[in-house]
Amino acid sequence: MPTITQLDTDHYLIPLPRALEDSMHGVMTGFEVITTRVTDSDGATGVGYTYTCGENGGAIADILGREMPPRVTGRDPDMIEALWQDLWWAFHYGGRGGPTVLALSAFDMALWDLKAKRAGLPLYRLLGGFDAAVPVYAGGIDIDLSPQQLVDQTHENFAKGHRAIKMKVGRERLSEDVAKMAALRDAFGPDMPLMADANMKFTVDGAIRAARAFRNFDLTWFEEPIPPDHPQGHARIATEGGIPIASGENLRSLWDFRTVIEGGVTFPEPDVTNCGGITPFMKIAHLAEAFHLPVTSHGAHDVTVHLLAACPNRSFMEAHGFGLEDYIETPLNIREGKAIAPETPGHGIVFDRDKLQRLRR
Amino acid sequence: MPTITQLDTDHYLIPLPRALEDSMHGVMTGFEVITTRVTDSDGATGVGYTYTCGENGGAIADILGREMPPRVTGRDPDMIEALWQDLWWAFHYGGRGGPTVLALSAFDMALWDLKAKRAGLPLYRLLGGFDAAVPVYAGGIDIDLSPQQLVDQTHENFAKGHRAIKMKVGRERLSEDVAKMAALRDAFGPDMPLMADANMKFTVDGAIRAARAFRNFDLTWFEEPIPPDHPQGHARIATEGGIPIASGENLRSLWDFRTVIEGGVTFPEPDVTNCGGITPFMKIAHLAEAFHLPVTSHGAHDVTVHLLAACPNRSFMEAHGFGLEDYIETPLNIREGKAIAPETPGHGIVFDRDKLQRLRR
Ligand SMILES: [Mg+2]
Ligand SMILES: [Mg+2]
Repeated sequence: MPTITQLDTDHYLIPLPRALEDSMHGVMTGFEVITTRVTDSDGATGVGYTYTCGENGGAIADILGREMPPRVTGRDPDMIEALWQDLWWAFHYGGRGGPTVLALSAFDMALWDLKAKRAGLPLYRLLGGFDAAVPVYAGGIDIDLSPQQLVDQTHENFAKGHRAIKMKVGRERLSEDVAKMAALRDAFGPDMPLMADANMKFTVDGAIRAARAFRNFDLTWFEEPIPPDHPQGHARIATEGGIPIASGENLRSLWDFRTVIEGGVTFPEPDVTNCGGITPFMKIAHLAEAFHLPVTSHGAHDVTVHLLAACPNRSFMEAHGFGLEDYIETPLNIREGKAIAPETPGHGIVFDRDKLQRLRR
Repeated sequence: MPTITQLDTDHYLIPLPRALEDSMHGVMTGFEVITTRVTDSDGATGVGYTYTCGENGGAIADILGREMPPRVTGRDPDMIEALWQDLWWAFHYGGRGGPTVLALSAFDMALWDLKAKRAGLPLYRLLGGFDAAVPVYAGGIDIDLSPQQLVDQTHENFAKGHRAIKMKVGRERLSEDVAKMAALRDAFGPDMPLMADANMKFTVDGAIRAARAFRNFDLTWFEEPIPPDHPQGHARIATEGGIPIASGENLRSLWDFRTVIEGGVTFPEPDVTNCGGITPFMKIAHLAEAFHLPVTSHGAHDVTVHLLAACPNRSFMEAHGFGLEDYIETPLNIREGKAIAPETPGHGIVFDRDKLQRLRR
């Protein structure tokens, strides 16, 4: 039986090529990446990571670097569910939610990577395997763009292989959001899958008003119209607004997802780097399946492609806008609107540590 | 207008005089205290703190020490609600829940202490003022004790001024919990207010079975029978088990409390050091009042006495078992089952920094 011998954690702040903006997070100039590498007694390794919009990376690194090692060293890395449960409860009081779950997500990802590499399997096959080609969309962080700039950005995304687009909404005036949506439909026609993301900006009544203004544009979903703390509000927005609702990037457990699904969310959207890791991500996908719902995703597309490639109910995967691909040796392969899960063992992500070195915090 | 000029944070690990045990946190040998002191441009100061069962204090200190100062320096310390909202949203992505809320709680507490000191008012009067004498109970962390040891401990608590007791339940065999409850009722009679706390050990069905076994002992409440992630489960336990339900120490926002109140919790029990601070604690108390419910508390009795002294719907306050009083210059005054809010400006807690110095992490 191998045992965990080491956990090495690094914390980076990566500047963005251009500042990004959405309705609630404001202007983002950089994002933090926290990586963790687990090594077992045979010398095999697995790598996990999480990221933030720029806050609390230090806390996440402290949990991975200070709290985790004494609790996991000497344990069997194959027993991921046992480790996950022990850590969830060890950290529950000062931990349910927030940076702890992001840290746990990174550790859990590293364990699954290790397991898949030891088994000589790409992660999506280890997890069950459904279809390596996953529908994908380009998730823009672009609330500040003009209609023409948004059209230009979408042409760039098409050149990269994308065929589906998500835009940010929630500008000061609703008519500005509508004008941008109209420009996209004019330029790319009625069939391009199009989503809108409000990043929790609205009240329920405000979201219903917005959804009605968006109704002629045939949106695939309306994402995070409201904060996650009002789960039952989603049902009113979907019913009275007439657009399906996606939510999940601000949920932090399997149980949060059950609550919003019961509250009317029909596109659950976990992020493997903040929902607790691959272990709960797959449970959330299965929960959605049990409710006859698709599962989509937020962020971390390079790992998530494996997870959705193992799910029969996968919907569009988000390819997200932070540009981590500049620091990964093998960027995601996107062709004609599909992302293709790689066939190398594990998740296949290799960080360019030389390039990251100068961004260390 | 004064401005915030400094935030000084310290992180301590305080060993317990004897190891404590409950059903889910296991054996605790020490607890962490993280203190933060805010200084304004007039040189006035306020002090806040939070604590953990031994995990994630480093993450909390990192948030207070690294993330908070650039976001609060130069701001008006009287505008607490504005600061709270800005920080809640700044930290939302990597922060809703977990260590972030504990850090925010400490900072918010420091701001209220500062405000009350500047106003020359004890905190309970600044907050509105209802009754300085607050009903109190001794919250034991005592699942490992025998029936006789529990009776002995209760005599000690009576000698300290207590007249109401909470005991831990959730031992391997339900009959062991029942035997301890019976011993307390035999020794102290039918009228002593008695609560039982399961620390989230049970399933809903298991909690109903336990509640029925406890029903003859006239419990004031049954605390945390289940994890907070299943809010609607509380209603079944209360209805089918026949005992009112308390919960709150593992909730991390005003909205979590609304959810469990709608789910059947009738003794909401916020902890000012982990619900987000004094600002949300008072809102939770008011929410309870709007639902015709009492509000009780968890932990941090030295500060909480002021909060419940300002609430007409206050129920029993917990005087909690970690023994922080050995590191505070003016311990809480308890007389005949009441805790008396002090009349000194602010919350009145002065940490013994010399004694704490050697416990620094
Ligand atoms: Mg989003
Ligand atoms: Mg309790």
